[in-house]
Amino acid sequence: MRSQKDLNIGMIGYGFMARAHSNAYRRVNNFFDLAYRPNLKAVCARDEGKLKAFADTWGYASTETDWRKLIARDDIDAIDICVPNDLHHPIALAAARAGKMILCEKPLSRNAAEGLEMCEAVEKAGVLNTVWYNYRRVPAVTLAKNLVAEGRLGRIFHYRANFLQDWTISPDLPQGGTGLWRLDAAAAGSGVTGDLLAHCIDTAIWINGPITSVTAMTETFIKERKHTLTGQMQKVGIDDACAFLARFANGALAIFESTRYARGHKALYTFEINGEHASIAWDLENLHRLKYFDHADESIVRGWRDIHVSDGDQPYMDKWWVPGLQIGYEHSFVHQVADFLEAAAKGENAGPTFRDALETTRVCDAVLASAASGQWVTLG
Amino acid sequence: MRSQKDLNIGMIGYGFMARAHSNAYRRVNNFFDLAYRPNLKAVCARDEGKLKAFADTWGYASTETDWRKLIARDDIDAIDICVPNDLHHPIALAAARAGKMILCEKPLSRNAAEGLEMCEAVEKAGVLNTVWYNYRRVPAVTLAKNLVAEGRLGRIFHYRANFLQDWTISPDLPQGGTGLWRLDAAAAGSGVTGDLLAHCIDTAIWINGPITSVTAMTETFIKERKHTLTGQMQKVGIDDACAFLARFANGALAIFESTRYARGHKALYTFEINGEHASIAWDLENLHRLKYFDHADESIVRGWRDIHVSDGDQPYMDKWWVPGLQIGYEHSFVHQVADFLEAAAKGENAGPTFRDALETTRVCDAVLASAASGQWVTLG
Amino acid sequence: MRSQKDLNIGMIGYGFMARAHSNAYRRVNNFFDLAYRPNLKAVCARDEGKLKAFADTWGYASTETDWRKLIARDDIDAIDICVPNDLHHPIALAAARAGKMILCEKPLSRNAAEGLEMCEAVEKAGVLNTVWYNYRRVPAVTLAKNLVAEGRLGRIFHYRANFLQDWTISPDLPQGGTGLWRLDAAAAGSGVTGDLLAHCIDTAIWINGPITSVTAMTETFIKERKHTLTGQMQKVGIDDACAFLARFANGALAIFESTRYARGHKALYTFEINGEHASIAWDLENLHRLKYFDHADESIVRGWRDIHVSDGDQPYMDKWWVPGLQIGYEHSFVHQVADFLEAAAKGENAGPTFRDALETTRVCDAVLASAASGQWVTLG
Amino acid sequence: MRSQKDLNIGMIGYGFMARAHSNAYRRVNNFFDLAYRPNLKAVCARDEGKLKAFADTWGYASTETDWRKLIARDDIDAIDICVPNDLHHPIALAAARAGKMILCEKPLSRNAAEGLEMCEAVEKAGVLNTVWYNYRRVPAVTLAKNLVAEGRLGRIFHYRANFLQDWTISPDLPQGGTGLWRLDAAAAGSGVTGDLLAHCIDTAIWINGPITSVTAMTETFIKERKHTLTGQMQKVGIDDACAFLARFANGALAIFESTRYARGHKALYTFEINGEHASIAWDLENLHRLKYFDHADESIVRGWRDIHVSDGDQPYMDKWWVPGLQIGYEHSFVHQVADFLEAAAKGENAGPTFRDALETTRVCDAVLASAASGQWVTLG
Repeated sequence: MRSQKDLNIGMIGYGFMARAHSNAYRRVNNFFDLAYRPNLKAVCARDEGKLKAFADTWGYASTETDWRKLIARDDIDAIDICVPNDLHHPIALAAARAGKMILCEKPLSRNAAEGLEMCEAVEKAGVLNTVWYNYRRVPAVTLAKNLVAEGRLGRIFHYRANFLQDWTISPDLPQGGTGLWRLDAAAAGSGVTGDLLAHCIDTAIWINGPITSVTAMTETFIKERKHTLTGQMQKVGIDDACAFLARFANGALAIFESTRYARGHKALYTFEINGEHASIAWDLENLHRLKYFDHADESIVRGWRDIHVSDGDQPYMDKWWVPGLQIGYEHSFVHQVADFLEAAAKGENAGPTFRDALETTRVCDAVLASAASGQWVTLG
Repeated sequence: MRSQKDLNIGMIGYGFMARAHSNAYRRVNNFFDLAYRPNLKAVCARDEGKLKAFADTWGYASTETDWRKLIARDDIDAIDICVPNDLHHPIALAAARAGKMILCEKPLSRNAAEGLEMCEAVEKAGVLNTVWYNYRRVPAVTLAKNLVAEGRLGRIFHYRANFLQDWTISPDLPQGGTGLWRLDAAAAGSGVTGDLLAHCIDTAIWINGPITSVTAMTETFIKERKHTLTGQMQKVGIDDACAFLARFANGALAIFESTRYARGHKALYTFEINGEHASIAWDLENLHRLKYFDHADESIVRGWRDIHVSDGDQPYMDKWWVPGLQIGYEHSFVHQVADFLEAAAKGENAGPTFRDALETTRVCDAVLASAASGQWVTLG
Repeated sequence: MRSQKDLNIGMIGYGFMARAHSNAYRRVNNFFDLAYRPNLKAVCARDEGKLKAFADTWGYASTETDWRKLIARDDIDAIDICVPNDLHHPIALAAARAGKMILCEKPLSRNAAEGLEMCEAVEKAGVLNTVWYNYRRVPAVTLAKNLVAEGRLGRIFHYRANFLQDWTISPDLPQGGTGLWRLDAAAAGSGVTGDLLAHCIDTAIWINGPITSVTAMTETFIKERKHTLTGQMQKVGIDDACAFLARFANGALAIFESTRYARGHKALYTFEINGEHASIAWDLENLHRLKYFDHADESIVRGWRDIHVSDGDQPYMDKWWVPGLQIGYEHSFVHQVADFLEAAAKGENAGPTFRDALETTRVCDAVLASAASGQWVTLG
Repeated sequence: MRSQKDLNIGMIGYGFMARAHSNAYRRVNNFFDLAYRPNLKAVCARDEGKLKAFADTWGYASTETDWRKLIARDDIDAIDICVPNDLHHPIALAAARAGKMILCEKPLSRNAAEGLEMCEAVEKAGVLNTVWYNYRRVPAVTLAKNLVAEGRLGRIFHYRANFLQDWTISPDLPQGGTGLWRLDAAAAGSGVTGDLLAHCIDTAIWINGPITSVTAMTETFIKERKHTLTGQMQKVGIDDACAFLARFANGALAIFESTRYARGHKALYTFEINGEHASIAWDLENLHRLKYFDHADESIVRGWRDIHVSDGDQPYMDKWWVPGLQIGYEHSFVHQVADFLEAAAKGENAGPTFRDALETTRVCDAVLASAASGQWVTLG
């Protein structure tokens, strides 16, 4: 085992994502041999009671109630941004100015304008940065990326992805406030586009290269919901569903769809890639499996292979248990932390950087613009 | 068993579809108790050698080499059109004028203009007519239709369908001629849009009502292929792939996609419908199954149900074997013949009629127009 | 197409299996180019009303109410035995003496003693004979047989099979009489052992060679049922469930199980074979698929292949439709008729012969004897 | 969050299971609100180099190289036994005498005689004790247990389970020594019976009650392997494969099978339970799912439900992420620790206790005895 030095983490937020990241920080050194050891130095939020409980549960050494104070502390090396999307921009700008590494929850920002300023801030400051598009680090997804990168699929003809949920079908669900800010356009920036399609787009660009044009439609099925903060029925500003057609720079055609009204799907992120020689398919509700079809297989015994991604020669899996024993959702965050720390030890970024994530936000913006205009939108 | 009278069939064509229809005619009375019994009176095609072999195999009593002569015969009650799409229009017009019932292979026509004339011809002549959108009669699909019609899904939010094949990936595959006319735009009218998406659209309209607007993209991946008839490399005029977004009159959003470049899929027609209360999914490569998710199920044991559609209380299945024993592709044609004959005995159409099929062709036209213009196209 | 001569069929019975066989006779020449054409000459049963309806539906030219008379007719070439198991023996003996070819529904007989006399009868008479173990001719099963025969699996370690149904769970279901003779020990000989496990054993011996020893248990869950013929509650004499361990001559270990009390399974016949190099799995409720695992596949993309058995290079499939389009249960009978007729044209048996089927009955007898004694039983 | 007191853990062993348990101790308080907090006080093993690395990775405060010294320490509350099976007995006896709580890796012991002494020792000493049959705490398995316990399945007719692996097929794999002691009969006691079937039996008894009789067969496919410790080819003493038939006290029939020669299965533990009203199926390679068939569902939409066990009302899942996001293998250990600590706070055992685990070992002994004698063995 290598000798290790602490990387002092300052976490902002205590919600679902703050738990997932904290868990990753605490576990990574048990499984990965790294030069850095994350040290949970401080956590910051406004609600002192919940903040204290969170700090106790996860072992944060201290708390702050003002993120500006957290950023100002000398004993913090890295800021982790786990707050609603509208706060990513001001916090990232301040953290960059303070010379902190930044690990920002996805999406990077509510829109590309904010995102561009964030990119410029971290690049100008020269601080390491990443955005938590964690699904890249599901082993099956990393394997898919590798198979495409090795050219096994040949020319890519088709990419299709969707992210289907069903948790907002009830009109009685309010918008806004803790746990429900994703339904509030002011806080979230958009609905499923920034929340769910952003994941699909990030993976797609990572595996298949730039998207060059899109045409989209969006819908808000429930037009008004009570707002948690005001207690009033208010117009719903987010997109409940979004679908778009796209073309990639490599000539592939794509369809993307996301909704929170797909009864029966809790968190079904799926993608499939069809190439000249082979095809790949994956879904989040069976994240430990990859489907693979290789046309080179002998004809009479050719079929989609159902790969149980749990062997030591598959991405990240030598770090965990033994073949046949599956890992889960949370491990994708551990992998991202491991890669971040490994690269950080060399002074490098591991990706996706803010700049990578900006590309995804630009596609999201194009999608929303197309849905509004009814026109194809070309990405420069 | 009822007393039966013959319905004399005049088949035009001897290809794949002529086999499927002939098989249906020969089998239907063994399983369905009907007033009509199809009598394979004559088959018509230009190639006398193949025609003779086909007639012998299927037991056609006579042959013709000119479809006009076949239509002129008094001993023919119904004309079955199983020839390339460009011939549907002239044959149907002539058959209607001659007062024959018409069973026309799908799509109705190369375009809506031809299709409208065909509709007007059969309606003016008052002849029974149908188009072989056979997948409606796969028991699982009929069951899906019934479940939606009974209101079990509640408000429909989403419809998604695709039809994926992989048989034209090789650039060495020629276009045109026997078995390959589907790659020849002059004969086929279009590529996957009329051949494959037409099935998806027919089912969608049947189950979920009218489509009101679309935006589409198409692609021809292999730009030139040798033409079988000329021996020359020629521009490929068909769409190899087509995807479109759509809105239904009932407010549902939809995505549709078809391609012949989806490595690993031989004939994967799938659809999924998400409603307020329940969802449904089906695919052609496991056509005997229907997936059903009912939100009313108790939460801890709620999940997608995998229904093996083979019980006597499921559509058409009382006519076949016993629960657990699956039927296949060809049975959908038997069912369509059975329904056609049952309705015909009352002087009625069973559907899909030419008029029904025209709606599908109108959507196909709109899709192709949108792909050409890059604009949303509204259907009146 | 070859010139054809008629093979005159005399069918005994009009139940479920008589339908399946009649269908096969009527269809086989539409899809297979054969020297023989089955001619439905006569059908025989005691209930004249039902007999007439059956003959009309399936186009039998004549009827008989005494099977001895049918066998005595000169215009009958082949006798098809589709009556309860207790009648297989007397009919087969008489038919053999009359020099008829015999196609006997499975199992061959109620026990090996009857079966041995039947074998000796057909062999002495020199008549062609077969037993309808139709599942051998499901294309995926034939493919499995071929893969093992080619040595692709290497040394076989394990064979496991079961046949699960759930149709007799209700204690209100009577035993005996039309449709329910399978619950009457006198008519059936045994319960699930002869009815369902016989299929599993036939396939197993065919693919993996002789079974040399077994230990078994049986159970009758519902001890008494009303008898249809007497109207009285009577002891149930059949086995409702049976499971046994076995060893094959090739050293493989096996487990077999069958029951009619497996809630949720209508007709789930499954088998799996594990070899040194590869494994195979199949199930009847998705009979058009074969699962195949090849250890020679590259490690990172190794997984069970899900083969859609519908391509022209897979067994029998060149005769049907196109890749991706599935056939069903009934086609296995068509294939058996086709193979029978092809061999018959050369004066040969196609298998499984009575002698082959006797092996299965001998294993069934050993299983029932073991269940009674609690001892392992060795097969000579 | 409750106030917590430390429970000082003394771990013996540093192998695969020691990692899984250590991970569980470190994580449990992040997700479960408990009165106890495991404190990794000391780890013990003979190889000092590996011991030091293990202690560093997992944060053990100290090390020991003699387990007797560890047990003698006053600052240790609980002993965790993660060494080969032959050492369970002496360590457990010593630990009980020292008044330590004991968490023993499964199986309890090499045989029932050892196990009985261990039970008597902990019961006499009055120390809390458990055996790591972790699969009970996979949420889907706990859910299955609950469904049966609530009577939803009604009378149980059938139980079938297997545990299939393929990692010992190569004859070049040696036996004995680190990582391979499971192939050495002296260290392991038995092969797949104690290693794999023990899991199946533990779950079966837990869910379905006592097993009353068994008949079994075992096989050792590779007769000799080089022994790691001696360097010599030696007879293989373990069972490579084992299958048995069984009867439960409740009248259910069962089949069990395990092997390490099932090509294509890395760690496929499956079970299925068929009851009068409903059936359940589960497998370890998709451990986050439960299949459920409820006969009370309306007939036309009845089918096996595929339950994604990730909702807050399903066992343990309120502690983790959100619906749709799966957990993995390691979480079963976290759950077992959580339940152990929760019960320990009240001075109670959570189960499976040594006494519970003894029942499983008694069945294993009966199975091996039956395989040796060829006779049914009855359990008292």
